[in-house]
Amino acid sequence: MATSANAIKTAILGASGYTGAELVRLLAHHPSAELRALTANSHAGKEMAQVFPHLGGVRLPRLEKIENVALDAMDVVFCALPHGTTHEVVAALPERVKVVDLSPDFRLFDIPTYEDYYGAHKAPDLQAGAVYGLTELMRDAVRGARLVANPGCYPTSAILALAPLLAAGQVEDEGIIIDSKSGVSGAGRAAKEANLYGEIAEGIHAYGIASHRHAPEIEQELGRAAGHAVTVNFTPHLMPMSRGILSTIYVRLANGAGADDLRATLAGRYDAEPFVRVVPEGTAPATRHVRGSNHCLIGVFADRLPGRAILVSVIDNLVKGASGQAVQNMNLQFGVPETAGLEQEPLFP
Amino acid sequence: MATSANAIKTAILGASGYTGAELVRLLAHHPSAELRALTANSHAGKEMAQVFPHLGGVRLPRLEKIENVALDAMDVVFCALPHGTTHEVVAALPERVKVVDLSPDFRLFDIPTYEDYYGAHKAPDLQAGAVYGLTELMRDAVRGARLVANPGCYPTSAILALAPLLAAGQVEDEGIIIDSKSGVSGAGRAAKEANLYGEIAEGIHAYGIASHRHAPEIEQELGRAAGHAVTVNFTPHLMPMSRGILSTIYVRLANGAGADDLRATLAGRYDAEPFVRVVPEGTAPATRHVRGSNHCLIGVFADRLPGRAILVSVIDNLVKGASGQAVQNMNLQFGVPETAGLEQEPLFP
Amino acid sequence: MATSANAIKTAILGASGYTGAELVRLLAHHPSAELRALTANSHAGKEMAQVFPHLGGVRLPRLEKIENVALDAMDVVFCALPHGTTHEVVAALPERVKVVDLSPDFRLFDIPTYEDYYGAHKAPDLQAGAVYGLTELMRDAVRGARLVANPGCYPTSAILALAPLLAAGQVEDEGIIIDSKSGVSGAGRAAKEANLYGEIAEGIHAYGIASHRHAPEIEQELGRAAGHAVTVNFTPHLMPMSRGILSTIYVRLANGAGADDLRATLAGRYDAEPFVRVVPEGTAPATRHVRGSNHCLIGVFADRLPGRAILVSVIDNLVKGASGQAVQNMNLQFGVPETAGLEQEPLFP
Amino acid sequence: MATSANAIKTAILGASGYTGAELVRLLAHHPSAELRALTANSHAGKEMAQVFPHLGGVRLPRLEKIENVALDAMDVVFCALPHGTTHEVVAALPERVKVVDLSPDFRLFDIPTYEDYYGAHKAPDLQAGAVYGLTELMRDAVRGARLVANPGCYPTSAILALAPLLAAGQVEDEGIIIDSKSGVSGAGRAAKEANLYGEIAEGIHAYGIASHRHAPEIEQELGRAAGHAVTVNFTPHLMPMSRGILSTIYVRLANGAGADDLRATLAGRYDAEPFVRVVPEGTAPATRHVRGSNHCLIGVFADRLPGRAILVSVIDNLVKGASGQAVQNMNLQFGVPETAGLEQEPLFP
Repeated sequence: MATSANAIKTAILGASGYTGAELVRLLAHHPSAELRALTANSHAGKEMAQVFPHLGGVRLPRLEKIENVALDAMDVVFCALPHGTTHEVVAALPERVKVVDLSPDFRLFDIPTYEDYYGAHKAPDLQAGAVYGLTELMRDAVRGARLVANPGCYPTSAILALAPLLAAGQVEDEGIIIDSKSGVSGAGRAAKEANLYGEIAEGIHAYGIASHRHAPEIEQELGRAAGHAVTVNFTPHLMPMSRGILSTIYVRLANGAGADDLRATLAGRYDAEPFVRVVPEGTAPATRHVRGSNHCLIGVFADRLPGRAILVSVIDNLVKGASGQAVQNMNLQFGVPETAGLEQEPLFP
Repeated sequence: MATSANAIKTAILGASGYTGAELVRLLAHHPSAELRALTANSHAGKEMAQVFPHLGGVRLPRLEKIENVALDAMDVVFCALPHGTTHEVVAALPERVKVVDLSPDFRLFDIPTYEDYYGAHKAPDLQAGAVYGLTELMRDAVRGARLVANPGCYPTSAILALAPLLAAGQVEDEGIIIDSKSGVSGAGRAAKEANLYGEIAEGIHAYGIASHRHAPEIEQELGRAAGHAVTVNFTPHLMPMSRGILSTIYVRLANGAGADDLRATLAGRYDAEPFVRVVPEGTAPATRHVRGSNHCLIGVFADRLPGRAILVSVIDNLVKGASGQAVQNMNLQFGVPETAGLEQEPLFP
Repeated sequence: MATSANAIKTAILGASGYTGAELVRLLAHHPSAELRALTANSHAGKEMAQVFPHLGGVRLPRLEKIENVALDAMDVVFCALPHGTTHEVVAALPERVKVVDLSPDFRLFDIPTYEDYYGAHKAPDLQAGAVYGLTELMRDAVRGARLVANPGCYPTSAILALAPLLAAGQVEDEGIIIDSKSGVSGAGRAAKEANLYGEIAEGIHAYGIASHRHAPEIEQELGRAAGHAVTVNFTPHLMPMSRGILSTIYVRLANGAGADDLRATLAGRYDAEPFVRVVPEGTAPATRHVRGSNHCLIGVFADRLPGRAILVSVIDNLVKGASGQAVQNMNLQFGVPETAGLEQEPLFP
Repeated sequence: MATSANAIKTAILGASGYTGAELVRLLAHHPSAELRALTANSHAGKEMAQVFPHLGGVRLPRLEKIENVALDAMDVVFCALPHGTTHEVVAALPERVKVVDLSPDFRLFDIPTYEDYYGAHKAPDLQAGAVYGLTELMRDAVRGARLVANPGCYPTSAILALAPLLAAGQVEDEGIIIDSKSGVSGAGRAAKEANLYGEIAEGIHAYGIASHRHAPEIEQELGRAAGHAVTVNFTPHLMPMSRGILSTIYVRLANGAGADDLRATLAGRYDAEPFVRVVPEGTAPATRHVRGSNHCLIGVFADRLPGRAILVSVIDNLVKGASGQAVQNMNLQFGVPETAGLEQEPLFP
């Protein structure tokens, strides 16, 4: 971690959840950023190592209540708070402090849509200035943003695969089916019977079918890419792994494109990207090959059904799907190398 | 296990694989059947408990080479041999011995299709007399069959959900997408790097995309239900669980039907079935709720995409997807209660 | 499930926990017992299938509050309630109703020891009449018992291996070390952060070191076998599996005995037992080989350290370690075959 | 990875196994080392990403046969070859090339002991010059070593906990019991039925009881610390996790020491170490808290048995137990910071 006078001073609000701990893991060895404050209301007063023993080797500030932190001494604040609680926290921050918000509170730009899915929006005036932080697609906007709405995990996996193809007119904007499989850390660390080891191990089930909150977020960004409204099927599944999302995406081909054309478009689009890779024909991406890294792998396959193709996209939901992308966005906001703090290779097996 | 003079005399060919062991587990307490012979060429001479220690509490015949078993003393033979090897074994059996074949060798009735996917068909004359043993849909035919082609695991999960709806004209026969997630036991017990614990745990990947051998089997049976040829997308995934298949099936609604109509059709169709259950609206089936049992659970959901619905079907691939259904078929062939030997409830957690 | 007039009428108090569900699974097909009532205070009014969907195929009474059940119409009550709550419930039962208590409330016969570990003992007058229900060692007493204290899971695994050897004087009663590894279901279904999938998967840790409540229970029964007080080391570990306990037990040999003598003693002791098996020399028991069954497997090994031996004992903590042994005890109490309802073979893989 | 002219030029022999891939992961971002060659006879000609897709983001040399690599152009060679094959490879290396050998071939200094456990020793003349590379205990010797015998995974976990206590005379050198639990990656990537997902998931078993090859290695190093021969019990178990070893160690206290004294000795010994940490009283180390890192955590507990204590030690078997310690040793051999390339925090969950 940087400790020089000109290090980026950072605070993490909500450090006692999995995304908070993951931010600490990544920032602990960031060459230009310094962790100055960690908040966690219910654990205030504890050392981070009491809450997350795996971080016992890092010298860290003690967990505090948010009101006891001098937030105006920070350069940037990572908000990893529950949805519905972030609007007011961000609204109270000094204007000069930049924000990367990992909650969904600033992701939906249409206020009524937000309110349908999450309840009252308490900072609508800030919404217009927010930038949706899917880094590879929004890089220039992120650079200039004060408030970055860091994308959801499922949307990251789906949008990276679909947006360039919709923009290129190579897939129909109708009938897109996104079948996603996620590890359990996406549900957070709250104690719930449904997420006990015995309830999750050795099984799989779908949930939030046709009602999951990430659907409107995906549609918003695909609509941006397509140039008009897009509706998708999005069906998430919960499976026995701690980290990872695999999205299998079924699309109809448009304008004469074939699976090879789709692969070429994606490969071209992401050729220079450090974190997104299109795998060779015939290769299937696996979540275990991105575990612990900020990588996204995308594969493209012809379907047996004529006129259709299949996309497979994998990320680590806690890294590219949350804390890693948050650090990537912060790097852009502060003009440091985009890969700083994010260069670990995946951990396999 | 029955041992009376009129017990059904059974042999298992290929008893050293997972489906063989599962047949032993189920037949060990079958009230009307008796295990008279177990074959396993590479393990011939061993006790079954040396190969499968969990069966050490059952009194069983020793494993033998197939040529050393008096097969004509059997009433029924379960073939759990690799595909391509079964044709000749079955052709050599005495006519009076009934057969339940767990391999794919007699599942495809169109010989050229079989040969495209599996190589030369060596018993085409027997093929016409075979019955595809998806019990709930083929019960009468199975009763009279000498040779039952026991369905594949993925096809069982998909066809039980789709066939009644295609027969009722409530879903379009075009554009059906079957996204399946399977446990690893479906790949058998052969030592392969790809199936090592370290390669499978904590991850998921798709495989056999647009090329898996179960696609033509699904299409054959859906075509039978629809009354004309049907083509489907079938995309299997391998995930960290030993047992279980969950198929998420995306369909287009036809003839004005809604999701509720589909649910009503399936509920009506399976109302009297002991092993197939349609779950209530809003409930999502989970593989862990059928583990170790011969059950199939099916759920129906409206889609966010207009004019579409989602089906979710779960089975234990080794029971309803293989050995359990094989016993169910044998029960029909011999006129004993269809549930005999299959009455265990699922094991959870 | 039996439904004849002379079926054993059973109730399960605390049916919404894992041991309650496991009792239902086993009793659902018991040839002589009938489930007449299920209680679960926080879930009263629900169907069991809403709480445990895997039991949706069994016709069951609805969950009720305990005060709404006519307990005096029962022949036997299974108590699967938390410790500290059972004393008063049992004390209020009609004298003619038999009891199998799965809690620890009646396992410790020395009241001060009980109170050191669990708090106030509220039914000391009933304690003397209770029988510690480790079936293989206490069969005659269980037959005549009104109140059976069903053993803890760890104690079952340890005592079955050690008691006959202490009784035979073949191992020293000093310096016994019991290193146990358990699946997570032993911790119950209560929502706790520590038992979330993400906290348990892919790891192991020791807990309750030198302070676990099962230590005095083990010592009580080993003392009974040895004929005088015995103190043991007991170190439990929590690992990523839903079911199973493996205890590795380190002992000093006594009176000239060798590992082979120990194996012979155990094999002789359990030769006629349906559920306990001593594995052959050189074979190591594995928890996965007893999963879902009422079996216990025991192995004996010479140590590299002179004068010492190693015992390995495995059970399914929810079956032989809880609900299976409870049914086994009920069978004895009512004079039906001891294996009734318990004949399923293990589920592997 | 360093690419400057004065970068340490490294080769990995046997790069297609898990320890080889782990070396690549760690060296990929090492500030002073450069990967110049990777060998893997059966995969020669392939890209590393074909064998280990998780490394697809690293620019790497192609896999080659060992005879096609200019080994004399290297500064250091990591040998990750099977035991029995390393002696001759190392003997053929130019004298100026340093070696870190991850096989057991140079770990046992008593040739007859080596040959009892592994077969013929083919380079006895090199043995005397080798240094056993348990870094924290052998730092000065490693600095000057040409040939480092990198320790086994189990020995690393056990020796770090025990050696300082034996050296201090605080534990008896007799009757030490080491009960170890390991993840599966320690068994390597070779396709074996015993290591299939279905054979490992949801279970645990002991193996190599009283015969495992790591026992003499542990005894050698404990003997060095104690000043005379030591014999130990060592009982390894295989459990469902990919990475991690937890050793629970049972010792007798000596010379009036108590558990607190042991903790103080270890804490003092490792106070300045970057990778070894003694956890506070009452805290139990967990393997998941070191996953992916070069850390070792040690806890000390009083026993219920008088005069005894319990040690718990955890490492990631592929990092501190293999490739991480190998890099740590290379760092010492070349005088670069000992933590270079090893600063990632653990990955949790």
